[in-house]
Amino acid sequence: MTEGHAPPALDRRLLEKFLNPRSLAIVGASTNTSAMAGRLWVNLDRTGYRGRMHLVNPNRERIGDHRAHPGLADIDDELDAAIVVVPSRLVPETIEQCAARGIPAITVCTAGFSELGPHGAGVQQEFAATATAAGARMIGPNCIGVLNVADGYVPVPTYNITYRYTPGTVTLVSHSGGMAVNLLNRAQGRGIGVRALVTLGNEADIDMAEMVDALVDDEKTRVITLFMERIGDGERFVAAARRAHAAGKPIVALKVGHSPVGRRAVESHTGALAGEPEVYSGVLRQAGVVEATGLDELLNASHLLATLPRPAGRRVGVFTVSGGECSYFSDRATPKGLELPVPAAGTMDRLGALVRFAVPNNPFDATGQIIADPGYARSVVDTFCGDENFDSLAVVTATWGPHDADQLLPSLIAAAEASSVPAVICSWSARHLTERSHELLDRAKVPVYETSDEGIDALAGLVRWHHDTDHVGPAARRRAPAADRPTVSGVLDEWRSKRLLAGAGVPVVDEVLVDGAGAAVEAIEHFGGEGVLKLLSPGLAHKTEFGLVHLGVAAHEAGAAIAELDSSAAAAGLAVEGYLVARRHRGVEMIVGGTVDPTFGPVVMVGTGGTLAEHHRDVRFLACPLTPAEVDEALRSLRSWPVLAGMRGAKPHVKGLAAVVSAVGAFIDAGRDWLVAVDLNPVIVDSDGAVAVDATVVIHEETRE
Amino acid sequence: MTEGHAPPALDRRLLEKFLNPRSLAIVGASTNTSAMAGRLWVNLDRTGYRGRMHLVNPNRERIGDHRAHPGLADIDDELDAAIVVVPSRLVPETIEQCAARGIPAITVCTAGFSELGPHGAGVQQEFAATATAAGARMIGPNCIGVLNVADGYVPVPTYNITYRYTPGTVTLVSHSGGMAVNLLNRAQGRGIGVRALVTLGNEADIDMAEMVDALVDDEKTRVITLFMERIGDGERFVAAARRAHAAGKPIVALKVGHSPVGRRAVESHTGALAGEPEVYSGVLRQAGVVEATGLDELLNASHLLATLPRPAGRRVGVFTVSGGECSYFSDRATPKGLELPVPAAGTMDRLGALVRFAVPNNPFDATGQIIADPGYARSVVDTFCGDENFDSLAVVTATWGPHDADQLLPSLIAAAEASSVPAVICSWSARHLTERSHELLDRAKVPVYETSDEGIDALAGLVRWHHDTDHVGPAARRRAPAADRPTVSGVLDEWRSKRLLAGAGVPVVDEVLVDGAGAAVEAIEHFGGEGVLKLLSPGLAHKTEFGLVHLGVAAHEAGAAIAELDSSAAAAGLAVEGYLVARRHRGVEMIVGGTVDPTFGPVVMVGTGGTLAEHHRDVRFLACPLTPAEVDEALRSLRSWPVLAGMRGAKPHVKGLAAVVSAVGAFIDAGRDWLVAVDLNPVIVDSDGAVAVDATVVIHEETRE
Repeated sequence: MTEGHAPPALDRRLLEKFLNPRSLAIVGASTNTSAMAGRLWVNLDRTGYRGRMHLVNPNRERIGDHRAHPGLADIDDELDAAIVVVPSRLVPETIEQCAARGIPAITVCTAGFSELGPHGAGVQQEFAATATAAGARMIGPNCIGVLNVADGYVPVPTYNITYRYTPGTVTLVSHSGGMAVNLLNRAQGRGIGVRALVTLGNEADIDMAEMVDALVDDEKTRVITLFMERIGDGERFVAAARRAHAAGKPIVALKVGHSPVGRRAVESHTGALAGEPEVYSGVLRQAGVVEATGLDELLNASHLLATLPRPAGRRVGVFTVSGGECSYFSDRATPKGLELPVPAAGTMDRLGALVRFAVPNNPFDATGQIIADPGYARSVVDTFCGDENFDSLAVVTATWGPHDADQLLPSLIAAAEASSVPAVICSWSARHLTERSHELLDRAKVPVYETSDEGIDALAGLVRWHHDTDHVGPAARRRAPAADRPTVSGVLDEWRSKRLLAGAGVPVVDEVLVDGAGAAVEAIEHFGGEGVLKLLSPGLAHKTEFGLVHLGVAAHEAGAAIAELDSSAAAAGLAVEGYLVARRHRGVEMIVGGTVDPTFGPVVMVGTGGTLAEHHRDVRFLACPLTPAEVDEALRSLRSWPVLAGMRGAKPHVKGLAAVVSAVGAFIDAGRDWLVAVDLNPVIVDSDGAVAVDATVVIHEETRE
Repeated sequence: MTEGHAPPALDRRLLEKFLNPRSLAIVGASTNTSAMAGRLWVNLDRTGYRGRMHLVNPNRERIGDHRAHPGLADIDDELDAAIVVVPSRLVPETIEQCAARGIPAITVCTAGFSELGPHGAGVQQEFAATATAAGARMIGPNCIGVLNVADGYVPVPTYNITYRYTPGTVTLVSHSGGMAVNLLNRAQGRGIGVRALVTLGNEADIDMAEMVDALVDDEKTRVITLFMERIGDGERFVAAARRAHAAGKPIVALKVGHSPVGRRAVESHTGALAGEPEVYSGVLRQAGVVEATGLDELLNASHLLATLPRPAGRRVGVFTVSGGECSYFSDRATPKGLELPVPAAGTMDRLGALVRFAVPNNPFDATGQIIADPGYARSVVDTFCGDENFDSLAVVTATWGPHDADQLLPSLIAAAEASSVPAVICSWSARHLTERSHELLDRAKVPVYETSDEGIDALAGLVRWHHDTDHVGPAARRRAPAADRPTVSGVLDEWRSKRLLAGAGVPVVDEVLVDGAGAAVEAIEHFGGEGVLKLLSPGLAHKTEFGLVHLGVAAHEAGAAIAELDSSAAAAGLAVEGYLVARRHRGVEMIVGGTVDPTFGPVVMVGTGGTLAEHHRDVRFLACPLTPAEVDEALRSLRSWPVLAGMRGAKPHVKGLAAVVSAVGAFIDAGRDWLVAVDLNPVIVDSDGAVAVDATVVIHEETRE
């Protein structure tokens, strides 16, 4: 921002000006209807824009049936919004004209800015500042704008977007215009009702975080669906996601594109593990966002969340007409968190009496017996669907030839529609072969998928949001007060790292720094006759590889061990600062660490530790500040959770580990202005608690602005 | 088999009688065309069966336009094949009549046998034996038979199967009739050419292994596509798969259903890790089978392997019209083994001169600039497609509205068709919205997918078969001579396990069994002044948990260590048999093990070792006997491969580890009649070699028949 007041918030009133303006100027409207600049007004004409549209083009008197204005200044109307489609070189002056007119909502479709490099980024930053300084807000540049299905407003400069609209409550937000088209077309082609489509392009002003925040308050939006290449303001995004969760409004998100890791410390395990996908996935989950891994999963999960009631639990009843399908469905559903319990005893009895060649079970294979007798089919399906052991239901079939389409499919659809729990139909279709089936399925009042895989992904998304987000805490959080910058910087040695952490309340192993064998013997005796002995050398991280760690040293062995350490250090050419003598712990080796993420700020990490931590890649990230419930959920999401939960009779002190995570989180949060990364590896968890037995802290040379 | 000669092999001549008989009896043919038994002959009539069809039904004189015979005996013709659709209680006598007529190829569609339980299994075993004793072979029961698209023979008793046939070279084999219908319908609906469909049902006689073996010699089959619930004879299957590989005939397989782990030893790590999916996946990969994880991936990969030439390598050029798509494609393609290299310098220059808003790269985003100018589009696409840095090509777009469908899509299709390397089109379609686009894509001469995900899976399958199966060795292998049964059985203690393994040539740590401190001191000095000391207690596996292992014991510490071991043993109530003193090794901890698998017989396992081996689940299985190339491929497939390949300057002796795997493989192979499981955990790999430092062998109480 160059001057003046803060720009207005993107509140409901302003969002309405973008999504449903009463009056609109299209600046750069063209008579060439093959071009974006011509397509825009044609699309509005074609779909019957109900507001007042004004076209601006100094070189034309008329465009289509519309009068063309030479400039914005010539329009005699109060303008809610402007859409800019002029050539890129004219965008800055056009924004100035918009600003002069006091237009509150500006969308810039024109491309050719930050996506081409730093020069373009500078230009767009300037004209965005011009807009906000004038009290306007801007979407774009390099986007296809918005599309409001619910209110029939279609100001998009494209050809390749559907003109058949099914209104609904899913709002799609995408940086990419191309993928937005795919999302909208696929959603509408499959009968998924859409409230609006919002493309953000280069986000020179309004970013993903702010748009999500605004949509939480949009009454017409029930589910927020994101195809995202980045998140502008991560902290704001997380707060908005938590607000959405509290409001009962699901967010489903697909993140694409992996930026190279920025200025993180390569010296630390945490830095090596804090890749963009890992940090995003961890924080999205923490904030209650359902993460999708593919475009169709994104749409299908959003659709179910928008249309089906909350299932009481994870238990799915699966009705099929094929034993192979039973196995296929089970194999795929179970790893995604769906449970397939056996039917209730009453169901087993009733099915047993009805079927000849089928064995009552779940998934249930009704066998080919069902084909010839639709009445019988309906009884079987109704019996199965009425089972109180199921929280949701999947009816899985193939799309049939004409005979069966008229007989069996209506029974299956009717049974699914009559189900007392949320139900979907998965129908393996074969395009062009079964038109009659497609007709029936298109009219079905339950969601229909063309494969079991899609139905499973959709149900899993529904269940995840309703049953895996109880940990999501309040949106408003107080950051820790900023801690004083330490007097040292760079990679701190183990002793200084641990002292800094211990001073901040992080549980660290009992340890003393000694200068020779005498003090070492005394310390080992103090620790119960056994200790861990390490050589301290300035700035050295990975001691194990140099043979500078002796585990399980008895008091009488201390002298020999120190002599060995000295000779190893001499061999490696390392200076000796002293010797660390620590209490010995045995238990599960975890890693706890953290860094300051370019998107989310202070993040903490916990996972499987040890020298191979980077190799195991079993870690989970959380944004700070964090709550105990979030830490608990993170621990349970680890591959190593069964080890923590107690394998072979061991009882690791999980609460102790959680306390370490929380303390490290607070440390990173407080040190956000000067911390690069922190590693506690390993943190040893035994039955009494958890302590860091090794640690590295890396501190920036300079304070962040 | 009850008596007489071995049944005839399923050779090409006999396969032809199943897939294309000159004369056929349908036993149980019905006038009720709503039932399976009526549908069968209707389908043959409708599709114009060119052989001689005879219907058998003692209660009818005519069925449709056909004469009905009272019994098989009344047919005055030489019969190549019979298809049995009588009620289940009549199947045994019908098979006897088939046997009496000397019909060589019998298909039993009737259900109600082993799928209902042990009684049915007994019945089907008996009538299968009747058939084979008479020199006949049988498919089924509980199947929908075969369908020969290439020769227009459609003897299936179903409604829900397509009647629009595209002949081709993919042969689909499935146990499940229901999933076979899905496979065929989807394949044909998407223009995937099919040679034949074979359903195997309960496999009372011909099983998956034998059918695959037969199809290797079927000239009309170019790709064998399997939807399998089990493999009958695993050894035969693996040999057939290797024959197929040698013949250049890809097999693509999807395995569903996880049987509970059978009689494996729960005492061993290997037993706990040898789940059905893990063993299947490992052995399929070893044998050069491309494993698919979903139905569409199965079909799409088969299709590409049947239709596209071999790509020279893994490098894919990706042309898109959206930056979001570039990220989406990259994120998904890279983990599947596809490489997306930068374009050649010449391409970069030429593209740079052509495009205004795009940055030349791979994936390449042509941006919206391409929309308005199809001529320009064609130049850009041709330039990109001609790049010598790419071994294959993906053109990714959306299906467009009418205007662009007429302009841009033909350019993209033409460019893909003209590509000098294998090319596919991924076109995000929206059913019902873009009919014109669908028409164009249906006529395209390159494979077309409705999502990028499908195109990526298909390309990855193509690349995997052509570039990840070089390790596949010869089909014919000699098993090791059976080793004598040891005189002990059950869970052998560490000492006896290691002696047995060492005697079989498996590298085991230098170790002695001593009875007290004196001998222990001597042994430790022999091992260079440091040793590992363990207590030996009869039948005890997991010593670490009882504190019965001391690492790094110096000679002078041996006495104290033995005293400690004794008191730990007393505390745990364990008998003391002696003390093991071993040379100490430090290095990467791996696990090598093996078991006798119910399907594949002797299998060896290698992976990440240590006490948490079951938790890490980073293991790979191979069937015995094995070749060095197969072991090498297995090691490279592990998550821990980077550690073996040398992380942080370490240089583990991978050849030494491979030698351990080969030796354990030979041990399991030779002990196949009495071995339950073997665990070497850990095997320590250092720069000098690999040795087992702990081991458990479990031996059956009885010899297998």
